[in-house]
Amino acid sequence: MYDFTHAPDRRGTDSVKWDVQPGELPMWIADMDFATAPEIVAAMQQKLTLGAFGYEEPHADYFHAVADWYATEHGVPPDPAWMIFTTGVLPALSAIVRRMSHVGDSVLVQTPVYNIFYNSIENSGRHVLTNELRYVHQQYEVDFDQLERQLALPLTTMMILCNPHNPVGKVWTRAELTRVATLCRQYHVVLVSDEIHGDLVWRGPDYTPIFALPIPLIQQTIALVSPSKTFNVAALHAATVIVPNDHLRAQVSRGLNTDEVAEPNLLAIPGTIAAYTQGHAWLAALRQQLAANFAQARDFITHHIPAVHVVASTATYLMWLNVGAVTDDAAALAASIRQETGLIVSPGTIYHGNGNRFLRLNYACPPAMLQDGLQRLDRGITHYLQTRQD
Amino acid sequence: MYDFTHAPDRRGTDSVKWDVQPGELPMWIADMDFATAPEIVAAMQQKLTLGAFGYEEPHADYFHAVADWYATEHGVPPDPAWMIFTTGVLPALSAIVRRMSHVGDSVLVQTPVYNIFYNSIENSGRHVLTNELRYVHQQYEVDFDQLERQLALPLTTMMILCNPHNPVGKVWTRAELTRVATLCRQYHVVLVSDEIHGDLVWRGPDYTPIFALPIPLIQQTIALVSPSKTFNVAALHAATVIVPNDHLRAQVSRGLNTDEVAEPNLLAIPGTIAAYTQGHAWLAALRQQLAANFAQARDFITHHIPAVHVVASTATYLMWLNVGAVTDDAAALAASIRQETGLIVSPGTIYHGNGNRFLRLNYACPPAMLQDGLQRLDRGITHYLQTRQD
Repeated sequence: MYDFTHAPDRRGTDSVKWDVQPGELPMWIADMDFATAPEIVAAMQQKLTLGAFGYEEPHADYFHAVADWYATEHGVPPDPAWMIFTTGVLPALSAIVRRMSHVGDSVLVQTPVYNIFYNSIENSGRHVLTNELRYVHQQYEVDFDQLERQLALPLTTMMILCNPHNPVGKVWTRAELTRVATLCRQYHVVLVSDEIHGDLVWRGPDYTPIFALPIPLIQQTIALVSPSKTFNVAALHAATVIVPNDHLRAQVSRGLNTDEVAEPNLLAIPGTIAAYTQGHAWLAALRQQLAANFAQARDFITHHIPAVHVVASTATYLMWLNVGAVTDDAAALAASIRQETGLIVSPGTIYHGNGNRFLRLNYACPPAMLQDGLQRLDRGITHYLQTRQD
Repeated sequence: MYDFTHAPDRRGTDSVKWDVQPGELPMWIADMDFATAPEIVAAMQQKLTLGAFGYEEPHADYFHAVADWYATEHGVPPDPAWMIFTTGVLPALSAIVRRMSHVGDSVLVQTPVYNIFYNSIENSGRHVLTNELRYVHQQYEVDFDQLERQLALPLTTMMILCNPHNPVGKVWTRAELTRVATLCRQYHVVLVSDEIHGDLVWRGPDYTPIFALPIPLIQQTIALVSPSKTFNVAALHAATVIVPNDHLRAQVSRGLNTDEVAEPNLLAIPGTIAAYTQGHAWLAALRQQLAANFAQARDFITHHIPAVHVVASTATYLMWLNVGAVTDDAAALAASIRQETGLIVSPGTIYHGNGNRFLRLNYACPPAMLQDGLQRLDRGITHYLQTRQD
């Protein structure tokens, strides 16, 4: 019904991902090579027929579309009154850091984690406080003892959670989230949850939105959701901030408006409504494709690149590859692979924690393209090992 | 060739302007009721065929389109190397205030002036320093003596110029701009010029972009330009910051990125390129329509509402109406007109200065709609005068 075997050719467009040299294959930045759901494009086309594109603001239909999506897809309907429109998860996160913490405060993240979190924290003069995830039996888990000690520090005023977690592809359980939210509540820490990958759990138990926890536990939580990863519409510039507590929401709203990231562009509202009301079937098909792609990549690597271990995952389209048997300098390895084969992957180094022994590979592309990437990865790793032995 | 006699029906869409009660007629917020240039819509439609909408960044074709537009339309080509993409003039202005001045500094504006300037300044903890325009013989002029004293104050680190000036519809001359830039240079004040109405000079001498001044004079100027007013695409979320000085530009770029207002949405680049490469004929037609609309409104008011004086203008689509013979409480008058006739105009009060004796009327609409608005204005003023006499 939907075509995941072709990738629109984005070379020579304004795509960041495809601004590459001839022959290079980008599998780093987190957008997909699939075309988005045709239902979304149809809604965009419909909007263009209006002709006049002045100032806009979202109304009840937008917020109800978000609520209905979470009710249907994840079994929990956030109250539309909790929601604020924003131009993106990162613009909102940066504005929230500035509004809800002070210069010199510590903002806690769980490493290895999405690298741009560091920018949002450090650009605004806050300190990054690192709660490194424990890597045990090739799986990541929270070090709750350290987490509690860190949240108890008087300068720790905010924690940024990644739910599900990028880059390690892990879906936190309700029990884990409850424990995190309980600690944040106990120590008066604002908990900001980046849930941009929440719709992309393609096997096993679904993710738990932070706002699915009991009301008393979410009085200082802020969830950031968006159709951008789900539907490959990063450039739609549309996201929703979900803040159950009135007082906190008023402050967040003020921050978003001060930073001028609270107004929708002309496609943001119709694109989001179409995604959230008509995108269920497309997403179901995408999840199947991502599960198949993950299996394809895992099987290839297991058979052909034994020096690399694929970290188990049930979510996102970002594969976390343990290359610790090859090197502890993932940046050098990624550079060598690009140089030798044209394959561009993200060195885990940029995510901190134990990322220096990992690569992140974006597998959201047609299977034939993925196969090309895997073969390049094989050649690149082999070449790197040979070079090292020389 | 282009149709300026019909207005797309934006009631019940997400339009801020048309979120009104049945029977109300909005002539306040500054977007037009005309459909944008069909060449722009065609480019947007073309972009939608790409299908995959990941992260984007502008390339040389974008910046050259901006440069060529200014060369052709205004006789001065800014260097593409001076330019930075941003999501809008106001997001950029707010980010620049935060980046290029300090909390507690004074930012100078010339009142009456676009009200949102105050937000950009005050939201970030800076003080508004008011250089009130002198109103002489029903015309506005700069009080240069006061301006120099104010720019010389040690806390004055930024001036926001509105070129052409909203709401009074005045086009500053090259001589005036030279004097302003010279003073800013002398007193080390960053001069930010909002040039969003620059393309909308519909009679007489064209506006002078601030970057048309001699190079030594523009080492501390920042021009903000956008197709948003020109082509009625406020929700395109696209603008360009033009900063001739390398060091200043690096700082501005850092500010825009920190505030997350430097990335284009999926229509911003193709929409802007289409506007700036294919929009010349449409703009020429629009200017004729605006000139005709201004004349229509001026003639109607002169003949039917003698208590109101139309301030002479050659630019923008915002008519500045002196209602000083009616009231010195423009807010009360505007509220009464809306209550009595459904016509919504902006009370000059919000622009400060002598705005309490003025109304701002947006005349960028089909002539029949304008006639409706003028008749309502007549009824509203008449009713207000009668009520006052009772």
